[in-house]
Amino acid sequence: MSSSSTSPGRDSKARAADAKPPMREALVAAAFQLFLERGYEQTTVDDIVALAGVGRRSFFRYFPSKEDVVFPDHERCLADMTAFLAAGTGDEEPVGRVCDAARLVLGLYAENPAFSVQRYRLTKKVPGLRAYELSVVWRYERALAEYLRARFASRRDGNLRADVIAAAVVAAHNNALRSWLRSDGQGDATAAMDHALGLVQSAFGTAPPPPADERPEDVVVVVSRRGAPLWRVVQEIESTLTRD
Amino acid sequence: MSSSSTSPGRDSKARAADAKPPMREALVAAAFQLFLERGYEQTTVDDIVALAGVGRRSFFRYFPSKEDVVFPDHERCLADMTAFLAAGTGDEEPVGRVCDAARLVLGLYAENPAFSVQRYRLTKKVPGLRAYELSVVWRYERALAEYLRARFASRRDGNLRADVIAAAVVAAHNNALRSWLRSDGQGDATAAMDHALGLVQSAFGTAPPPPADERPEDVVVVVSRRGAPLWRVVQEIESTLTRD
Repeated sequence: MSSSSTSPGRDSKARAADAKPPMREALVAAAFQLFLERGYEQTTVDDIVALAGVGRRSFFRYFPSKEDVVFPDHERCLADMTAFLAAGTGDEEPVGRVCDAARLVLGLYAENPAFSVQRYRLTKKVPGLRAYELSVVWRYERALAEYLRARFASRRDGNLRADVIAAAVVAAHNNALRSWLRSDGQGDATAAMDHALGLVQSAFGTAPPPPADERPEDVVVVVSRRGAPLWRVVQEIESTLTRD
Repeated sequence: MSSSSTSPGRDSKARAADAKPPMREALVAAAFQLFLERGYEQTTVDDIVALAGVGRRSFFRYFPSKEDVVFPDHERCLADMTAFLAAGTGDEEPVGRVCDAARLVLGLYAENPAFSVQRYRLTKKVPGLRAYELSVVWRYERALAEYLRARFASRRDGNLRADVIAAAVVAAHNNALRSWLRSDGQGDATAAMDHALGLVQSAFGTAPPPPADERPEDVVVVVSRRGAPLWRVVQEIESTLTRD
């Protein structure tokens, strides 16, 4: 959707966002300093721009509202995730693909552990931010679900399966992320995430078939009642083992 | 937590809520009439109380805010769900139990299909209500997750499993509920819900053991490489079938 042109006519907002200019970062830093000193509710946009030494228009150029300064990178991350999902060949195992997409969000948090922990504590204390975060999480979940709905389009229960798996992935991701944030960003976030997403993959995923030259020798499974006579069981196995 | 006493000293709010007095229902009816005629944002609490013929204080006695009049029964339903989960003996299969808890919410919608469909259409149109609904859904999800966390307390990954299953149950429930609402409350909501929750149960549930007198004859499963010699397979089966 966004232009990949680098011509001078390119939208200046997009260029500014790509370059992460000091002004945007200064606004985030000023906002968090004030949120921690005075509390979120007691801090106004005017306070933030005064501390950052810029005008109100500059604030609203980067952030639609005060809530958005608390989650400054989620729009970019949502766009990255959507692009990642769209970039597949369509042959990827779908559940593994949405798990990898969820790992992009972890990456955003792990980039800057101190900031992520600060924000986690702030969000827990301010009900309005908690509600805002729920709406952000919902958008991630919908992005995963839309991808899965397309991949499962030929299944009769495709939409249901897509919605359930997307919700399970988001819940697993958030469980691992919150454990890591509660540990003050200590510990191995990636290992915790792999473990959490592994639960979803084992419940819903189908491993891709291995390359032909790596396939293990065929396996035969025979199920029999314990009370069946042995000759009947042997006959069944023999006919299975010798079948083409 | 709430008193079951019927003495005159009982909290009048609780008594009023139990009895579903005409005033509360009149406020909901007036609110929806205005929301549909003028739109949600254009309707004030003053408009609602004027149409219902009551004072502002009466409105706020029943509803903390204008959003709450759109979801008048969720507090009761959340309380019912929490009570249902707490009332178990602790022997119930946990995933089946949270699925049954989710069915209580469907019951709330199915009680009054016309109202539920009206609200669904309104919620889709008003972003503020959508956000409010997300916070309600989150509370249901937490109630299910808290129950599962307690049931899975002895498992190392109990909290993770609880969060993932709670999210999957809520997503399955909402998928079935929304399909039913989109069909204008036609169709068999219960069958759709059973199918949706069945997906979660098959992914995460463990069926309870049947009573001893209903257990089917034991089954023996033998897994063997196709290339194994027949005598080796027969030996294995024989020793399994004759084992105590």
